[in-house]
Amino acid sequence: MQVIIATGNPGKVKEIGLAIAPLGWEALNLKDFEVEMPEETETTYEGNALLKSRAICNATGIAALADDSGLEVEGLGNVPGVYSARYGNLNSDQERYEHLLANLGNNQNRRAKFVSVVVVSHPDGKDEFYRGEVEGFITREPRGSGGFGYDPIFFVPEFGCTMAELTPEEKQSISHRGRALKALIEAHS
Amino acid sequence: MQVIIATGNPGKVKEIGLAIAPLGWEALNLKDFEVEMPEETETTYEGNALLKSRAICNATGIAALADDSGLEVEGLGNVPGVYSARYGNLNSDQERYEHLLANLGNNQNRRAKFVSVVVVSHPDGKDEFYRGEVEGFITREPRGSGGFGYDPIFFVPEFGCTMAELTPEEKQSISHRGRALKALIEAHS
Repeated sequence: MQVIIATGNPGKVKEIGLAIAPLGWEALNLKDFEVEMPEETETTYEGNALLKSRAICNATGIAALADDSGLEVEGLGNVPGVYSARYGNLNSDQERYEHLLANLGNNQNRRAKFVSVVVVSHPDGKDEFYRGEVEGFITREPRGSGGFGYDPIFFVPEFGCTMAELTPEEKQSISHRGRALKALIEAHS
Repeated sequence: MQVIIATGNPGKVKEIGLAIAPLGWEALNLKDFEVEMPEETETTYEGNALLKSRAICNATGIAALADDSGLEVEGLGNVPGVYSARYGNLNSDQERYEHLLANLGNNQNRRAKFVSVVVVSHPDGKDEFYRGEVEGFITREPRGSGGFGYDPIFFVPEFGCTMAELTPEEKQSISHRGRALKALIEAHS
């Protein structure tokens, strides 16, 4: 089966490619198609991921896999959540996580959760949904250069370091997106 | 009231001095007395702290304050606990925490707890006991240069960094020893 990885984020393309290799699907690059990604206008991860996977599938007639994910910080009332990629209307990962650190300040409730929802939309109209989560704590300074997004400020208790300090294989084994994709793989095994 | 700080650990002398300042007690240095500290032969924090405070009080006729503390790592069956200061028969803080990191390896249960018991022994035979605890996670690498003992590998979720990255005031506000000493101060206010 062919599947278009419906994301413009190179970090996600890499992670998803690594994770779905066991499926034996032929992963196609969105850039090779002249299609537009829809705006993420929904208020849930499921809604936004489905918007993307369904739009790309309908436009191309090929199955499409999309992800929507976010970081929910307890001490900030579970913000930024589905708005993680647009937090503070800022343009870079670093500006966004610095904005988050500034907003959290010395708040001692630094408990946080990464959430990922992966949707696979098929040309026959079927949509598959998978959710993955990982719990951790917001650090006071960024650490590590791996991953992307808020990874440098997310401490993973199971590894004793930030998500950005993990190897790609370690990150896949524990991350929200890795877990959602693992559920996808298990559903197809 | 005069009280001898019954510890040979300069890190503890400093922390205890800072914490008990509000009591207005005159803190005396153990080094100014020709007395021997007893061996820590008990199997509980309470037992070892009492051994020390009672021995120094009896030998000098002056009240004595002693602390016994340890680090309990869940993934290691709550080891090293009361044996933290002698873990692996190693001679330095760094050798001990490296020994612990090696023993824990990739174990994903890195949950840990610092425990401190503070005892004040009085010439009239009265002994006061105070216990403080703080929960955290063992990091995969040491970070920070403050504190002592296992502080560089103990991640404090409330601050998003290791105990060794905290300022002395921050450490006092959250640490096991700080909490035990806070209980002592509250009992005397």
